[in-house]
Amino acid sequence: MPSVGPSTSPKNLRISAGELAALLGGDLSGPADLPITGIAPIESGGPGDLTFVRAKSFARHWEASRCSAVLVTRGVELPPTPDRAVITVDDADTAFARVLAHIDPGTHTPPAGVHPSCVIDPGATVSPAASLGPNCVISAGAVIKDHAVLIARVFVGADTTIAEHATLHAGVVIGDRCTIGRRTVVHPNAVVGADGFGYIPPTDDRPAIKIPQIGSVEVGEDCEIGAGSTVDRAKLGATRIGDRVKIDNLVHIAHNCTIGDDSILCGRTTLGGSVTLGKRVMIGGAVTIADQASVGDHARIAGAAIVMDSVPAGETYAGIPAMPARTALANHGAMRTLAEFMRRVDKTLARLTPKDEPKDSQEPAKPPAEQHAERT
Amino acid sequence: MPSVGPSTSPKNLRISAGELAALLGGDLSGPADLPITGIAPIESGGPGDLTFVRAKSFARHWEASRCSAVLVTRGVELPPTPDRAVITVDDADTAFARVLAHIDPGTHTPPAGVHPSCVIDPGATVSPAASLGPNCVISAGAVIKDHAVLIARVFVGADTTIAEHATLHAGVVIGDRCTIGRRTVVHPNAVVGADGFGYIPPTDDRPAIKIPQIGSVEVGEDCEIGAGSTVDRAKLGATRIGDRVKIDNLVHIAHNCTIGDDSILCGRTTLGGSVTLGKRVMIGGAVTIADQASVGDHARIAGAAIVMDSVPAGETYAGIPAMPARTALANHGAMRTLAEFMRRVDKTLARLTPKDEPKDSQEPAKPPAEQHAERT
Amino acid sequence: MPSVGPSTSPKNLRISAGELAALLGGDLSGPADLPITGIAPIESGGPGDLTFVRAKSFARHWEASRCSAVLVTRGVELPPTPDRAVITVDDADTAFARVLAHIDPGTHTPPAGVHPSCVIDPGATVSPAASLGPNCVISAGAVIKDHAVLIARVFVGADTTIAEHATLHAGVVIGDRCTIGRRTVVHPNAVVGADGFGYIPPTDDRPAIKIPQIGSVEVGEDCEIGAGSTVDRAKLGATRIGDRVKIDNLVHIAHNCTIGDDSILCGRTTLGGSVTLGKRVMIGGAVTIADQASVGDHARIAGAAIVMDSVPAGETYAGIPAMPARTALANHGAMRTLAEFMRRVDKTLARLTPKDEPKDSQEPAKPPAEQHAERT
Repeated sequence: MPSVGPSTSPKNLRISAGELAALLGGDLSGPADLPITGIAPIESGGPGDLTFVRAKSFARHWEASRCSAVLVTRGVELPPTPDRAVITVDDADTAFARVLAHIDPGTHTPPAGVHPSCVIDPGATVSPAASLGPNCVISAGAVIKDHAVLIARVFVGADTTIAEHATLHAGVVIGDRCTIGRRTVVHPNAVVGADGFGYIPPTDDRPAIKIPQIGSVEVGEDCEIGAGSTVDRAKLGATRIGDRVKIDNLVHIAHNCTIGDDSILCGRTTLGGSVTLGKRVMIGGAVTIADQASVGDHARIAGAAIVMDSVPAGETYAGIPAMPARTALANHGAMRTLAEFMRRVDKTLARLTPKDEPKDSQEPAKPPAEQHAERT
Repeated sequence: MPSVGPSTSPKNLRISAGELAALLGGDLSGPADLPITGIAPIESGGPGDLTFVRAKSFARHWEASRCSAVLVTRGVELPPTPDRAVITVDDADTAFARVLAHIDPGTHTPPAGVHPSCVIDPGATVSPAASLGPNCVISAGAVIKDHAVLIARVFVGADTTIAEHATLHAGVVIGDRCTIGRRTVVHPNAVVGADGFGYIPPTDDRPAIKIPQIGSVEVGEDCEIGAGSTVDRAKLGATRIGDRVKIDNLVHIAHNCTIGDDSILCGRTTLGGSVTLGKRVMIGGAVTIADQASVGDHARIAGAAIVMDSVPAGETYAGIPAMPARTALANHGAMRTLAEFMRRVDKTLARLTPKDEPKDSQEPAKPPAEQHAERT
Repeated sequence: MPSVGPSTSPKNLRISAGELAALLGGDLSGPADLPITGIAPIESGGPGDLTFVRAKSFARHWEASRCSAVLVTRGVELPPTPDRAVITVDDADTAFARVLAHIDPGTHTPPAGVHPSCVIDPGATVSPAASLGPNCVISAGAVIKDHAVLIARVFVGADTTIAEHATLHAGVVIGDRCTIGRRTVVHPNAVVGADGFGYIPPTDDRPAIKIPQIGSVEVGEDCEIGAGSTVDRAKLGATRIGDRVKIDNLVHIAHNCTIGDDSILCGRTTLGGSVTLGKRVMIGGAVTIADQASVGDHARIAGAAIVMDSVPAGETYAGIPAMPARTALANHGAMRTLAEFMRRVDKTLARLTPKDEPKDSQEPAKPPAEQHAERT
């Protein structure tokens, strides 16, 4: 297949090393007139490409790299390469993100106005400054504000508000009675405002009784909600996602959750009902948080952890069940030799136990396998 | 952001305490003419709001609550609050669900008939009493029965039947040869009838061989299938979901699964191929059930459990791997101190082992870390 | 509900046992003129049905089966059933897959050409030999090649190429700058080319900084991507899925992953950022692979495993954390009796420890529960 990498992207890099150093407020060593025409990973890049070195551990790659220029964090020593450009900045990551933003082709968005294929309920209010691409459906009472962008095939439910400069990608469904904040981005096929999942369990005498979920979802400003993720409406009041919350793909957020400002949730994480996350919480991928659990401000949860109850503010938790990360690391490491350890200990204890002791005066030292057989 | 909670919902509560007690068949103490204008959680509600107290443990919140009325389960003592209304019912949960249903604004649905933007294959049969919203696509041989509601952008495959009063939300895809039962609700962007995933694994000599999945999916009556969930067609025959089965969001149900009546599956659960669930099984969130495993009638699986083989009828299982819940609770608790326990035991055993014994006559008591280093 | 199984499928089996044996190059014993009219599982099939016996362990079912004919792997002994047809083949699985393909009704696809309800950007190139069903949206710079099939409601982003004979099912979203290879199938509501998830975490002084993901996704030839799965674009370069890769439903593949040819990923698996899978890797269901981890060629990962670092080529790993499968099996088995083992060992050690030893000269042998209580 032909490569469709950034080198073919509409807005490519056309800048000299000197201009780039000035743009980033960095210190240049090497030729100021050296042209930079693209950006690439340090191993795979070639002439004309800019790359970056975050920390000492990557510095060794620079000498062998075919890239023409590098952004390096102040304090990281690079081998001298006179013919190439080294731009020293306070933080190579941040500087590199700025360069990426500079050449980001961005999302291909429809022009302002409503595509003729859209179906807008007469009871809806759509700003003339909003951009609605093909096949969007806007329900009664919905409000689409200035400069909101609905890429294509977006469904907006009744009495729902999409705030200024929000972007809803193709296939997004926003349910009834929800609010999407300013500049928030909802990625393809995500669902915000699905019905909450609440039932009084069935008994011998009657089937399950549905608990109507008459609440809503309120998503704050500058959030991102990943592709295929789902956020359910509350039973009462609202499922609340604060400002600047970043949610990855295929994340499930159940009814009545509250997520604090600046929190980050990585892919495939699950929040049960009424989970509360504080501010600036960081959750790794594939984490499960049980119903009613809470996570304090600034806490961090390692990927794949299972949080059963609560995590204190500022703590880093990991493991199954989730516990302080250092303990989890030790215990999960110990798991790797558990069976062998049990065998060895049972053997040693059997040898240490005086032969003449009446067996019924103590628990026998049987191998775990047998005990298990007895138990199940 | 402005609140878009239930207080702004179209059908709000306008009823007196006396009328409500009569509606629910409850016993009223307090002013019968007290107006109830909304419902709210016991902590956050205010004047005019109705709340509920399920059990003794919540009773203490009533005195401090600003709510005007409360539904309380018979037998739960509440502090006397003469100016407020206390309605005693057999089960506060059930009564509260009835009140929620009474004021539920419901889903905004299209009128009966087919929206002009829909594309209906000439070989499809759509009841004039069905409601098809914008941009629905109905394939050849499909049958949409009386009072079925397709909110918008629903795709119905060839030879598929959508029964009476079923509701398919925006973005739903129902594949070929499937059946959706009466009154069943499929939530946004869910997929029923995707191709089953079956391959004869690749060898050195040839690539993987696809096993065609020529079967179907049959979903019973009064079911719910959550947003973004996927249910695959069977290799032969049908993947069967019984009646009154409630499935939450982002659940994956592989080919040839069978789910018994009245079962409940919470969010992000995964059923491997040919899994069998009995009747009225309850599965927590993020559970994984391995291919071919079976779960007996009325069994319960705790959230995040991994079921490797089978769970007997009526049992409650939990843990990784899933085992009887009491054992799982003890074992996962023990995990929290495993590494420290191993260190301590090895130290004590080393001390207890007579010095003169020839080391090669027994397994050495090395710390687990070293043994691990040897092994990997 | 009426059955909608294969017996109602448009292309049903109408063949004699002799013709089928010839078709498959198998050896027939039994009546060559025996008509075969359907296929079914060995337990539930009836007269006229063909079934199969892969291995000895299933042979016992044949005598009781009501099926009229069976495909059996050479070397597997079946009880004599003179009136029925036994067709012996080298591999019953492969032969059976061929029979299924023979009667597979296939997917109902739109005719060649563009449905009038589609919205095609003037800057897009759509082959007249491609089939675009209702409500597809094709963006500027996109290329849809000969015989590509877009079932319905497919969104194709800017500068994206859909190669010959690829099939995109209903609700699929392909983002900007991506490539879908020849004959690759993307199942309903899957998303390829969503924005990668990269942020420089927030600090006390500033919010999170988004790292623009300017790369693409390149999907090879003859791949399948399951319903509701998501594949993110790369930060730089491309997220690469090789040829003949089969991905099940609700799988998440983060930015910059590389998946080798002929790999198979089962349902609900999660690949973190920059994960590398070698060629012909097999991943079970609900597996989690951490950011940056790599899995060597031909390695196998058991379902629900959590891979923290790397898996060597050719190895089979399982467990949490993932380790060689035999060790994992032993350790997870040991988990079933861990708490009871700890109690017993502590008790025995306490008894073996001489009373007169000063307690402060060693760690005390407390029950784990107490230690835990101290710790947390």
